[in-house]
Amino acid sequence: MHSLPETFPPLILASRSPRRRKLLSEIGFNLEIADIDVDESFPEHLKGGEVAAYLAGKKALAYGVMPEDKVLVCADTIVVLGEEVINKPADAADAARMLSALSGHTHRVFTGVCLRRGDEILVFTESTEVEFRAIRPDEIDYYISEYQPFDKAGSYGIQDWLGYTCVTAVRGCFYNVMGFPMARFYRELQAFCKGKD
Amino acid sequence: MHSLPETFPPLILASRSPRRRKLLSEIGFNLEIADIDVDESFPEHLKGGEVAAYLAGKKALAYGVMPEDKVLVCADTIVVLGEEVINKPADAADAARMLSALSGHTHRVFTGVCLRRGDEILVFTESTEVEFRAIRPDEIDYYISEYQPFDKAGSYGIQDWLGYTCVTAVRGCFYNVMGFPMARFYRELQAFCKGKD
Repeated sequence: MHSLPETFPPLILASRSPRRRKLLSEIGFNLEIADIDVDESFPEHLKGGEVAAYLAGKKALAYGVMPEDKVLVCADTIVVLGEEVINKPADAADAARMLSALSGHTHRVFTGVCLRRGDEILVFTESTEVEFRAIRPDEIDYYISEYQPFDKAGSYGIQDWLGYTCVTAVRGCFYNVMGFPMARFYRELQAFCKGKD
Repeated sequence: MHSLPETFPPLILASRSPRRRKLLSEIGFNLEIADIDVDESFPEHLKGGEVAAYLAGKKALAYGVMPEDKVLVCADTIVVLGEEVINKPADAADAARMLSALSGHTHRVFTGVCLRRGDEILVFTESTEVEFRAIRPDEIDYYISEYQPFDKAGSYGIQDWLGYTCVTAVRGCFYNVMGFPMARFYRELQAFCKGKD
C-alpha cells in the first residue's frame, strides 16, 4: 500500500467499476464506495463528451446530503464512433454488433467526471482516441464468450485480450479508456481542494 | 486463467521484467522464463530504436541451442529524449536527474523485440510518444523513495503513481511503454509461426 505525496480529503467514489476503484486505491487515496442508481437516459441533443459529463453530473446530484469533509467523485464513460454514442451492451449479440462496428476503425472514449464537496461542484471531460486493427468475426465471438464484456462501454476492456492484441494505438490519456482520466483528475482535485483544508 | 483464440507454440521469454511476464501469461500464452545475461553496451552510432533492436537481438543470440518447437522472445526497452538514450538509472541521484529531464516534455519509448525459432530470427521495434506534465522536485523525491524505480528505463513506471498522475498523454501503443508492444507482437508472432505447425 502506497501513500500519496500530499494530503487529500477522503473520497466517496460512486462507481461499481472495479477498475476505477483499483486505480484510485492503488496509489493511496482514502476511498469509500457509494452505490448511486440513476436512470442513464440523456437528452438527445447532447453529443459525445456532453453525454458523459451529463451522466456524471446526474449521479453526483442523486447523492443526498454531503458530509462536509469528503469529496464525492462520480464518473461516466462512453464510446463514440462517428456520431453514434455507444454505451454498455445489452447482450452478446449487441456486444458483437458493437465490436464489429469498432473493428478496423478509430473511435473516441469520453469520460465525464464530477467532483462535489459542500456546495461546490465541478465537471470535466477527457477524450482519448483508440485505434483498432481489423478483428475477425471468430475473434469477436471468442472474446465475448471468454471475457463477457457486458459491464463495459463499447464491449471491450483496454486491459484484457482485446486491448492487448487489437488496440494498435491510443492518442491521449490511456487510463481514460480504462474508465478514469487519472492525470487530469489528480490536477483537478488539487485545484478543487486548494485552500479549503 | 484465459485461453487464446488460436494455438501458438510455447514461448521462452528471456526477461526479468515481471510486467512482460504478466502481459503474456495473463491472456493465456504458455510461457517459460529464461535468464540471459548480456553486456548492455551498444555501438555509439546507433540511434533511438536501433539501440533497442540491437540489444534485443544480442540477447536472442546469447541463448544457446534452441528447442525446435519453441519460440524465444527477447525484448529491450529504452527511453529517448531528444538525442539522448536513457536506460535504467544507476542510483537515486541518477533517477532524479532522468525524471527532471523528462518533466514537462514529451519523450519516446522504443521497445525492440526479437523472435527466434530454429534458424529463423525476426527483429522489430515499436515506438510510443509519452507526454509528461511538469513534475515538482518534491514529487520526484517522493516518487523515487516510495516506488524505487531502479529496474525501469527512464526511472518510471507507466502503471504506478507517476504514470497515473504525471502522464498527460501517450501516442501509440500503451503496452510498449510498459515494456512490451503487445498488439504488434501478436501480429508478428502470428506471421512468424504461420504454416510451420
